[in-house]
Amino acid sequence: MKLISSLTLAGAAWLLAQPALAQFAKPDQAIEYRQGALYVMGQHFGRIGAMVNGKVPFDAAAAQENADLVVVLAKLPWAAFGPGTEGGKAKDEVWKNPAQFKEGNEKLTAATLKLAAAAKTGNLETLKVAFGDTAAACKSCHDNFRQK
Amino acid sequence: MKLISSLTLAGAAWLLAQPALAQFAKPDQAIEYRQGALYVMGQHFGRIGAMVNGKVPFDAAAAQENADLVVVLAKLPWAAFGPGTEGGKAKDEVWKNPAQFKEGNEKLTAATLKLAAAAKTGNLETLKVAFGDTAAACKSCHDNFRQK
Repeated sequence: MKLISSLTLAGAAWLLAQPALAQFAKPDQAIEYRQGALYVMGQHFGRIGAMVNGKVPFDAAAAQENADLVVVLAKLPWAAFGPGTEGGKAKDEVWKNPAQFKEGNEKLTAATLKLAAAAKTGNLETLKVAFGDTAAACKSCHDNFRQK
Repeated sequence: MKLISSLTLAGAAWLLAQPALAQFAKPDQAIEYRQGALYVMGQHFGRIGAMVNGKVPFDAAAAQENADLVVVLAKLPWAAFGPGTEGGKAKDEVWKNPAQFKEGNEKLTAATLKLAAAAKTGNLETLKVAFGDTAAACKSCHDNFRQK
């Protein structure tokens, strides 16, 4: 119980500790911001997906460009899940289990760095593996923290 | 008239010529994407505005971080104004005057590069000037191409 409490506190502290990026005048702005950032990220991630799934021809430069954008965008949404910003598509679990949410966010940002590194190799098979790992990080968080 | 036509064609060609970033399965996705990118950009630009307008203390590192994000985000929305994506908050003028729209997009992206350079100086007065110029580029396009 003590462990859970301290993990929860650590997560809550992390949600509060992003001063440069956590300045929203109103909760609705935070919700629109995080949904916008996640949507734009999803589009660029999806363009890599279309390549690794063979729906569009593999274009190494485009994959790299999209992966670099995913890296930048993957850092943004989490600061917009601060206290008092419940709602949108988020489950209450975001605020009930902030340590788990933080862990999921960090797994994603780590996965996106590997995705960008894989894209830089120009090797489609390498990219496929990194894409799968990143997609798993997306899905894990969605399963736990996003409403169906 | 010939000049106008060729400018219009140049603008239309530009809207079509962004293959890496212009892949939207449905018009609604393009609209959600561009609105998301513009909203996230506006939030980060607004954080610099809060500093140059004295609403929050000047934090040079935060200003630089936000300006760098504005540079990245300012490149994104325009590919999502392709043919058949009319609607959202955009006026029909986007598609009627693509050359003028393109010119506005390019003015903004150029202004954001100067904004980031100004932020890197760490000088608030320098940043104020660049912020004002960037805000003017935003406003000019909004006046012409965004619904009230």
